[in-house]
Amino acid sequence: MPTVSPLAPESFPELSPVAGVRLASGACGLRYQGRTDLMLAELAPGTRVAGVFTRSLTASAPVEWCRAALAGGRARALVVNSGNANAFTGKAGAASAARVARRAAETFACRPREVFLASTGVIGEPLEDGKIAAALPRLRDSLSEGAWRAAAEAIMTTDTFPKLATRSTEIAGTRVTLNGFAKGAGMIAPDMATTLGFVFTDAAIPSAALQPLLARAADRSFNAITVDGDTSTSDTLLLFATGRAGNRKPASAGDPALRAFRAALENLVLDLAQQVVRDGEGASKFVAITVTGAASARAARRIGLAIANSPLVKTAIAGEDANWGRIVMAVGKSGERVDRDRLAISIGGVAVAAEGWVVPGYDEAPVAAHMKGREIAIAVDAGVGRGRATVWTCDLTHAYIDINGSYRS
Amino acid sequence: MPTVSPLAPESFPELSPVAGVRLASGACGLRYQGRTDLMLAELAPGTRVAGVFTRSLTASAPVEWCRAALAGGRARALVVNSGNANAFTGKAGAASAARVARRAAETFACRPREVFLASTGVIGEPLEDGKIAAALPRLRDSLSEGAWRAAAEAIMTTDTFPKLATRSTEIAGTRVTLNGFAKGAGMIAPDMATTLGFVFTDAAIPSAALQPLLARAADRSFNAITVDGDTSTSDTLLLFATGRAGNRKPASAGDPALRAFRAALENLVLDLAQQVVRDGEGASKFVAITVTGAASARAARRIGLAIANSPLVKTAIAGEDANWGRIVMAVGKSGERVDRDRLAISIGGVAVAAEGWVVPGYDEAPVAAHMKGREIAIAVDAGVGRGRATVWTCDLTHAYIDINGSYRS
Repeated sequence: MPTVSPLAPESFPELSPVAGVRLASGACGLRYQGRTDLMLAELAPGTRVAGVFTRSLTASAPVEWCRAALAGGRARALVVNSGNANAFTGKAGAASAARVARRAAETFACRPREVFLASTGVIGEPLEDGKIAAALPRLRDSLSEGAWRAAAEAIMTTDTFPKLATRSTEIAGTRVTLNGFAKGAGMIAPDMATTLGFVFTDAAIPSAALQPLLARAADRSFNAITVDGDTSTSDTLLLFATGRAGNRKPASAGDPALRAFRAALENLVLDLAQQVVRDGEGASKFVAITVTGAASARAARRIGLAIANSPLVKTAIAGEDANWGRIVMAVGKSGERVDRDRLAISIGGVAVAAEGWVVPGYDEAPVAAHMKGREIAIAVDAGVGRGRATVWTCDLTHAYIDINGSYRS
Repeated sequence: MPTVSPLAPESFPELSPVAGVRLASGACGLRYQGRTDLMLAELAPGTRVAGVFTRSLTASAPVEWCRAALAGGRARALVVNSGNANAFTGKAGAASAARVARRAAETFACRPREVFLASTGVIGEPLEDGKIAAALPRLRDSLSEGAWRAAAEAIMTTDTFPKLATRSTEIAGTRVTLNGFAKGAGMIAPDMATTLGFVFTDAAIPSAALQPLLARAADRSFNAITVDGDTSTSDTLLLFATGRAGNRKPASAGDPALRAFRAALENLVLDLAQQVVRDGEGASKFVAITVTGAASARAARRIGLAIANSPLVKTAIAGEDANWGRIVMAVGKSGERVDRDRLAISIGGVAVAAEGWVVPGYDEAPVAAHMKGREIAIAVDAGVGRGRATVWTCDLTHAYIDINGSYRS
């Protein structure tokens, strides 16, 4: 059992109930001994759903199921298992997913396409979906409004702590709640890890508005973090809105009444995403990389991710080395437009390079002190435009190799 | 001093002279103690030159110098130093490069643009070009036809062995020789490493034919290897043809008389590129990844590089784990078209996955034995077309983190 990441939050947030959402978890014995591996959420009739998924071209069967089900826009149940990803399992995998959805639909008297699925764990092994189906009635009987932490624990793989977040805000004067949980420790380790995130709100929001809200929030959070640059076959982020808060329904994602909700959602999803980075396999430092002066926001993010994914930058950070030369290298390989002779870099708020060269009289002492901390801040100005973005990552340590270089069995 | 890579060739090749090429090396004291750091090549009048360079947008001053000089197509001297990359050094760096070229031009009574330059070592520090200039007359006086190994040693940084190769072939019945040497241990470590390669031949080949020949050879060798996916600001590959063999001049790169030469050149450059991988920082395994059935050769290489650059694949190989699930993941993130349900993977010649799933009755024993060896062979069929490519990489070990995570000073 790995020890808890040194970057873990000091305490877990208290999650209030979200009207229209009940949760249960249990052990169905897919792979793990002595822990839970199955999570069930019941969603009140009328719940709307949005989702964003991995861009992998070898996506898992549950991802393909969810993509198809999303066309209906409605959800009554969510079933998530850990231990087996049901990925690279061919037609048998699709049949397994369909059987789980059918059984959950029977359990909740809804249509199969109102059931959403996610699986995480080993890939290329058939999913023993019978074990999941057999456990569903038992889990249904134990559904409760307060079982958030147990749900977050049931979906963990190589995670060293459960990841939970909650926000409270208002829409047109009506108070609404958002709760979420996620798992992930590498962006992927097909044996054991992947990134899954689930957000539940009692807000009433039409399907047409829900999807752009979630896409935007994902773009600035889960799409702006990286542990190892690898992409899961199973990455899934779902947002469920039960409507039970009874707020006036906004017309569209751009409705001014949604301003506070939009901010709360983005904030919550970013919180979860950052917790995933803080549990990055072997991580000892949490790194925020802010890029300004790029040709566009997209260019800024690509530059940021080139830095965040560079093994040479990540090992330098692990070694507490303010090696800005490697940052220059990573910026150069991003493929995005930069002005080499206007490039500026600061570390921990101290300017180390400007005008394409080391800052005259640069004193390395405060930067070296910053590198010894747990939270590292890198800022880069590309010198060509006004695009900006922040991405988050962790360092690359011996422990990453220990975790990922050990034999599966 | 690092010990020699376990993947190093068992012996060094004997390099015969190349008519029209003389070499010298020495210590000019840029950074290292007790070793050489400067290499000079004199090229006979009439020598033609071709070059390919890093695609980095933060390219070094010597790279920019060579790009401009290449327009002339002629070369009389090559000056390479280790210890300082003269990269990210702004206008002062460009002035340093120009001063070295001017001094070499005086030394050999040629034009500055007939002088080619490469530098490797720390970045962001001013190059003490006066030390190089001062050493040039001394090196000129010690030029010899046989100093190949000393030249290869002078340009090493984190390399654990010098990289040399030679081929003999013919053009239209006339015997010609190709000699080359290279350095590189990470695709880059701006502190210490980068990839430089220099090839010399006595063949007579017009400039117009030389560049496509080299570009094609680089494409299948240096552009098909990766240690850590990072891209140097200084990567340089130059080909010099003195014409002293006196062969009938071919008309173009496609001239049938060049068939054997083309093959010898590609073979030599690939040999050098593979030696770089064999000296990959911390490498314990040499990995060849062959991709077939892709939409195009370019798509095949991108799939291959996605596998070769995946930290999860590389750590699994270090752990001697035949973790084909991670290969599936890497294929999926390549962005190239694959048919998930026709994807096939073999390791060490044993089919492990086919038709989008694990091979029925797959026996892991021979694959596990293969993974314990030093040479790992992975083959992937994407199931959509006829494009194929092979790429080469090494594993990702604790030693990589030791080498790159230690403080610069």
